[in-house]
Amino acid sequence: MAQFGAAVSVVTTEGTAGRCGFTCTAVCSVTDDPPTILVCLNRSSLMNPVFKSNGVFCVNVLGAGQEDLSAAFAGQTGVNMAERFVRDRWDTMVTGAPALRDAVGSLDCTISDINECGTHTILFGSVASVRVDASRDSLVYFNRQYHALPVAPVRSEQVS
Amino acid sequence: MAQFGAAVSVVTTEGTAGRCGFTCTAVCSVTDDPPTILVCLNRSSLMNPVFKSNGVFCVNVLGAGQEDLSAAFAGQTGVNMAERFVRDRWDTMVTGAPALRDAVGSLDCTISDINECGTHTILFGSVASVRVDASRDSLVYFNRQYHALPVAPVRSEQVS
Repeated sequence: MAQFGAAVSVVTTEGTAGRCGFTCTAVCSVTDDPPTILVCLNRSSLMNPVFKSNGVFCVNVLGAGQEDLSAAFAGQTGVNMAERFVRDRWDTMVTGAPALRDAVGSLDCTISDINECGTHTILFGSVASVRVDASRDSLVYFNRQYHALPVAPVRSEQVS
Repeated sequence: MAQFGAAVSVVTTEGTAGRCGFTCTAVCSVTDDPPTILVCLNRSSLMNPVFKSNGVFCVNVLGAGQEDLSAAFAGQTGVNMAERFVRDRWDTMVTGAPALRDAVGSLDCTISDINECGTHTILFGSVASVRVDASRDSLVYFNRQYHALPVAPVRSEQVS
């Protein structure tokens, strides 16, 4: 799967079951009508029942330079969950799930369906609200490394 | 969804219902155990029943420079289905679905589950065989344009 280049997102939730989030490349657009996306979440994760109970999630697509945020929410920095939300600016949109102010894009969703598949749960999200910063370069993970994906492709004549 | 950078793949099938394929960015890893991926396919597509009847598919991850192949299988070139398979080298792996010889990677799958979701069908594929060319740059679609994603990230000291 390392050969699939994929955008890096931090997927969050908040509600009566608590607030948490995780770094994820397994996000996928499903349908435009109604706008639906899906997220894959490990069944053994302590966050799994939190997402299901809250019934909402927000996909925050990261931009170039947000590798540290990605590492923190991937649990690679030893920072506990509460502290992961302290360093950056977060607010909420419609559902109450944390939305990253400086994301390339945020897709705020209510969970419309849940499908258990082997080791993972697939959360289908009906998109309630969208926020986009179309000027930002995107952060992509490919071949086990981070890459910055420019909004406009780099052409050879620009490299001089 | 344009703000999600995503690898570009051509997803193919072959069997008693016929041979066809389509260009797709809605491919997602689901679980490692058992290895499972998913593909989203429009329910109104004539290919939808062909994939379901054949029960197999192969995800061929495209490399930099394969924009023409992507356009052909996206139906943007006026080339009919049979002719789309003529220009490049294809073979088969385990399931019989067409595998692109010059792909960055090919994931040959048997359909393990089908989930209808709004306008789209989600095909879950149990990975039967994998072929990877780890030396190839990947083709990524982001912000409505193609990008080449290098195997090794470009560092500033290399730009001189």
